Amino acid sequence: MDHTELVLGIDIGGTNTTLGAVDRSGRCLAETAMLTRSEQPPETFFRRLQRTAQALWDGLPKGHRLAGIGVGAPNGNYYRGTIEAPPNLSWDFVDVRKEMAAYWDVLVAVTNDANAAAFGELMFGAGQGMRDFIVITLGTGLGTGIVVNGDLVHGFSGFAGELGHTIVEYGGRPCGCGLLGCLETYASATGIRATARELLAARPEPSALRGLAEPQLTSKAIFEAAQAGDPISLEAFAITGRILGRKLADAVAHTSPEAIFLFGGLARAGALIFEPTRQAMEENLYSVFRGTVQVLPSGVPQGQAAILGAAALIWKELAKYAPLA
Amino acid sequence: MDHTELVLGIDIGGTNTTLGAVDRSGRCLAETAMLTRSEQPPETFFRRLQRTAQALWDGLPKGHRLAGIGVGAPNGNYYRGTIEAPPNLSWDFVDVRKEMAAYWDVLVAVTNDANAAAFGELMFGAGQGMRDFIVITLGTGLGTGIVVNGDLVHGFSGFAGELGHTIVEYGGRPCGCGLLGCLETYASATGIRATARELLAARPEPSALRGLAEPQLTSKAIFEAAQAGDPISLEAFAITGRILGRKLADAVAHTSPEAIFLFGGLARAGALIFEPTRQAMEENLYSVFRGTVQVLPSGVPQGQAAILGAAALIWKELAKYAPLA
Repeated sequence: MDHTELVLGIDIGGTNTTLGAVDRSGRCLAETAMLTRSEQPPETFFRRLQRTAQALWDGLPKGHRLAGIGVGAPNGNYYRGTIEAPPNLSWDFVDVRKEMAAYWDVLVAVTNDANAAAFGELMFGAGQGMRDFIVITLGTGLGTGIVVNGDLVHGFSGFAGELGHTIVEYGGRPCGCGLLGCLETYASATGIRATARELLAARPEPSALRGLAEPQLTSKAIFEAAQAGDPISLEAFAITGRILGRKLADAVAHTSPEAIFLFGGLARAGALIFEPTRQAMEENLYSVFRGTVQVLPSGVPQGQAAILGAAALIWKELAKYAPLA
Repeated sequence: MDHTELVLGIDIGGTNTTLGAVDRSGRCLAETAMLTRSEQPPETFFRRLQRTAQALWDGLPKGHRLAGIGVGAPNGNYYRGTIEAPPNLSWDFVDVRKEMAAYWDVLVAVTNDANAAAFGELMFGAGQGMRDFIVITLGTGLGTGIVVNGDLVHGFSGFAGELGHTIVEYGGRPCGCGLLGCLETYASATGIRATARELLAARPEPSALRGLAEPQLTSKAIFEAAQAGDPISLEAFAITGRILGRKLADAVAHTSPEAIFLFGGLARAGALIFEPTRQAMEENLYSVFRGTVQVLPSGVPQGQAAILGAAALIWKELAKYAPLA
């Protein structure tokens, strides 16, 4: 293993962009962050990104070689190296590979944030050695990365893995994507807040959540109230898990994964979310799949997951050409 | 291309078993059929199968070599070469590869009937040259074969691709699998019959179907009545297509195929089933997938599809080891 080669892993988020220098074993040697500021044009962002990355690189011990740059971004397209109509950024269309080429002459690969998380799981996490698994990121929305036969599924469009926009309830909650009743309007940090508000409106019983104004009624507040035994909060988790578990049963009927990894803020609620999810999934599985799927927490360290995932994208690409390197 | 090599394609169905000798280009040189009779033990079946296959082979011009045997069967497991708890056969568990080894010393591969249809589409049909597509077989039930990155998805369990047992309506129609509300209880020959019976019970208007006793109320009778403009029959097709199309939108959000091929009896209804299916799928697609998926009829000749699909399984296996042969 060549320890002098490093890749830059870059995660472009709605608010922050984080970047790190990662070696082939998944060790992050240095990392930094900057504001994304997508209200400014993409060219401005990439100029700032170049300066930030250069400063990060200059701080590393000498003797490293940059082997490539992996980018995770909302609606990142693997085939085209683009970001297209991203939900949480003000840009319409960004040719990431082209913008990068102004500064770097290395392999640049792009994918969406959930696929990057799945690449990270495959190369450095609990998905190592598995050929078929799914990563579900439970953040503001619900992202999905699907691995089949040891590789990410990008599909014909390059956007495969969008379980957040499968429909749970026709005519249900309005989704930012324009559809009604999408899974991510129920199973996400945003979704559990909406469920808690609905329960508070429908039920007379006392709840610790009633003292909170809407901005304070966060998924974290619901988690803390549930831990303290608040029945409305416990039910909000039970409902969220049941809806998620049902859709995971559908996902199993598609690609039959060995494991489904839950990742992101809501997954940190542990048994509160895992138990109802597992139970609802198992109840709705076709018999041949029962007992074949584990629902597990991610094996990638939460703090560096986005950087490691974006970096893994490059290491996976390079491994295709030199599998024994 | 070596024209002397042939494979046997065998389709084991609930009533009939069909077999044929197929060359590498997908030409079926000879075919025959026998009753399956799964009330008899598997050993009896395989002894009869061997005799039938030998007779087929003996009828071929001399000089051919048997390169392998591909088997499509309900709940056929690709990894284990088995048939496990098949829904339409009286057998519990059959080790097909072991039973075959008593008679033949060649490569034997097994998969379920819908996966075999997808192998056929990939090697000999309209899926040639596509890397990502889905085949939906609309027969008594609803089978699915999913192709990702140019290969069939078998998944961890070996049973991947069972959209027929994703749930359309929780607490809905009882399915033979034990779940309630499975897609195949709505979108299949059986499903459209149930929908027509429900419509006849709920609606007062006259219908050509009212003159039919239940055994005569087949999907073919509903098709013929719909062609003649019978409103109940037209609505039964519209409902069936809408339910199927919604679930196809979910399927697209998983693997983002280039095409979805509809195959089997119900698919022969043409626009009556394709139009509402396409419309409901498109309406329920996440924006990035809109306009990226074609819903098409199969490109494999209906009569020989099962044999060609089972045979394609072997040609695909052999191609893995000798891609330029």
